[in-house]
Amino acid sequence: MLEGVLSAVFLVNIGQLVTLAGPARARVGVEMRELGLLRDAALLVEDGRVTAVGAYAELRSLTDSQTAVIDAGGHLVTPGFVDAHTHLVFAGNRAAEFEQRIAGATYQELAAAGGGIQSTVALTRAATEDELLVQARRHRDWMLRGGTTTLEAKSGYGLNRETELRMLRVIAQLAAEGPVRMVPTLLAAHTVPREMADRRGEYLAWIADELIPEVAGHNGNPRLARYCDVFCDDHAFTVAETRRVLESAKRYGLGLRIHAEQFRPGTGAALGAELGAATVDHLETVTTETLSHLKAAGVQPVLLPASVFCLGRSQYPPARQMIEMGLPVVVATDFNPGSSPAPSMLFSMALSCIAMRMLPSEALVAATVNAAYSLGLGDEVGSLEVGKAADFLVHECKDYRELAYNVAAPVRIRVFIAGVEVSQ
Amino acid sequence: MLEGVLSAVFLVNIGQLVTLAGPARARVGVEMRELGLLRDAALLVEDGRVTAVGAYAELRSLTDSQTAVIDAGGHLVTPGFVDAHTHLVFAGNRAAEFEQRIAGATYQELAAAGGGIQSTVALTRAATEDELLVQARRHRDWMLRGGTTTLEAKSGYGLNRETELRMLRVIAQLAAEGPVRMVPTLLAAHTVPREMADRRGEYLAWIADELIPEVAGHNGNPRLARYCDVFCDDHAFTVAETRRVLESAKRYGLGLRIHAEQFRPGTGAALGAELGAATVDHLETVTTETLSHLKAAGVQPVLLPASVFCLGRSQYPPARQMIEMGLPVVVATDFNPGSSPAPSMLFSMALSCIAMRMLPSEALVAATVNAAYSLGLGDEVGSLEVGKAADFLVHECKDYRELAYNVAAPVRIRVFIAGVEVSQ
Repeated sequence: MLEGVLSAVFLVNIGQLVTLAGPARARVGVEMRELGLLRDAALLVEDGRVTAVGAYAELRSLTDSQTAVIDAGGHLVTPGFVDAHTHLVFAGNRAAEFEQRIAGATYQELAAAGGGIQSTVALTRAATEDELLVQARRHRDWMLRGGTTTLEAKSGYGLNRETELRMLRVIAQLAAEGPVRMVPTLLAAHTVPREMADRRGEYLAWIADELIPEVAGHNGNPRLARYCDVFCDDHAFTVAETRRVLESAKRYGLGLRIHAEQFRPGTGAALGAELGAATVDHLETVTTETLSHLKAAGVQPVLLPASVFCLGRSQYPPARQMIEMGLPVVVATDFNPGSSPAPSMLFSMALSCIAMRMLPSEALVAATVNAAYSLGLGDEVGSLEVGKAADFLVHECKDYRELAYNVAAPVRIRVFIAGVEVSQ
Repeated sequence: MLEGVLSAVFLVNIGQLVTLAGPARARVGVEMRELGLLRDAALLVEDGRVTAVGAYAELRSLTDSQTAVIDAGGHLVTPGFVDAHTHLVFAGNRAAEFEQRIAGATYQELAAAGGGIQSTVALTRAATEDELLVQARRHRDWMLRGGTTTLEAKSGYGLNRETELRMLRVIAQLAAEGPVRMVPTLLAAHTVPREMADRRGEYLAWIADELIPEVAGHNGNPRLARYCDVFCDDHAFTVAETRRVLESAKRYGLGLRIHAEQFRPGTGAALGAELGAATVDHLETVTTETLSHLKAAGVQPVLLPASVFCLGRSQYPPARQMIEMGLPVVVATDFNPGSSPAPSMLFSMALSCIAMRMLPSEALVAATVNAAYSLGLGDEVGSLEVGKAADFLVHECKDYRELAYNVAAPVRIRVFIAGVEVSQ
């Protein structure tokens, strides 16, 4: 059975195995409560892929003396977490701004005073590629320790050709060195760079006509982005501006994502439905009507509760309504230095349960298989089914409900990517 | 200089050292923002105690070839965290109840249906001392990883002699084996045990007249508790009942703590002031008038924001008002299986900042030196001053404001207790 196999791993003594076996698409409605749970299970991995899932006695006959046996200690095993929305690459931090906000300044006030995104842009432009890589690697390692095995990462703190490309090269470097799987997204339309404040149209034309073709890999350039994202908001880009960027991205073969309806309804989600975006992200203020457009268009909502929490706000996106309407909800961290310096998927899952009343099972589905589909990787990762990558976590606990219950506990997770232990 | 010294440790290359040097009492008002910060500092430890703090060049002359040098890598160093309110010892967990609560059940409904504290009481009574010890050690290790070097731990899931004493012996065992310093508290008056539901008076008389003298070490018994706590609440004990227990505790030399005003004003805080309690804990609903009584009596408020968060509630205690009134505020985790399964002091500090608008400096003072004074250990731990125990943390970050900013980040903290590295 294992002849010609480069490596085989046999994970045994799994107290509770969350397979998330199910249809070959993102899960909706009551499907989000179905975890494909197995008790006292085992998992066979060959060449980095799951080749069998089931009872120990049945699977043992498929192994030989070359198979590495790993004992899960009777603990919970789940798929690795898939973080579908991060701003991983940036220089510096905004801990001083965090303190100012506690003392009373609003996010918008800080931005107007030259803080916010623009301060990170200035630091990121001034950083070398190696400096960005070192810091991104440190934050990626936090995520890895926290169980994230695949993550989306955006540019957007460069806002000029040189630095946007530098950020995307850092993401490409992290993808190449592994072990965490990376999905790169161009977010040059994060905000208007200060030096072009009165030349918005020129900035957008440059993104649409020059930068997008380049990062999409046209004209002999290396392909540096798989998705294009726009921050559609009162303080960022209008719906018309967002359309201009995303129509270009679509033409050049990039998938679409939108930061939409974070602070005000009518800021981009309907456009996402119209253009067939993969996701619209945030949605704190989304209306029922817009949700029905998203549903009809098959767009996945990406909920970012940590950014609501870290901003000290109380309006979370209407997760329950989305699930009841049959939308394939995703939960992600929004890790970034301003509104969500919170890299832990487990914490975002806990917030999903406590603040958005998602059931622990729904939060787990949203953080794994649904997130994978939102990144176009649903056939590869997000569940532990035969043929998929063996990205899995051996937790300290024995029941999936403990993941969100023990909020922010300093747990140690054994992390495996493609069947190889990569625990930090 | 080091002659006769058993062990000496020289911590060098400290980028930012939070000494918390200050008056020999808990800090109030603007003192809570004063961190005694030193840049590019070093710390000398002999026989587990701080013997010098200052510039590397000055301290180096105090060392010899026997001194172990530890490089802090330019990182932040703070005192170890002091968690002044935990229910560390219990059997089982309530992750299933967590799920039910998300699905709509209230804490009170779950308690009325035989869930809540009573379900943990049943499991804890059924557990052996060794089983309790194994689970408590696991949770203690979470806290240790999270930087907690001293913690208070309460009984209260026994509610009969046998199990209350078993819990206190587990705490004594953890204290004896170290490394985390433990402060034991009797909380037999956590709730009325189910079998005595119609004999409340009898239960209270037994606590006041028999259990308290025993655990306080009278009549030749070993002293198993340093404090006595009562849960004063609509669903627990009245103010009159609380008085009965605490007056006995005071008579037998125990310090006093009270769970007060969590759900309704007028539930115990004024009594704490009258009896000279060390702390009153919770205080989500406390009034200004009661706060002025606490201030006049020198009682320390212990704020437990993680229990507000985990219960999905929005009414946090009025931390800013307390600080402005000059109360020596403490922040603790309230770690317990029902309302706060959140063992991380860093997370409670982040909540203090985000949900209660405490400045990062105030949260750090509340979680260290003020907490130490609330446990009668202010001369021993809580700050890094000459003569105090060398309980300190070498963090991954370089500035104290990052501690609360990177909410729930899976950081690795190097933990030292009495100058010895005890990192997990």
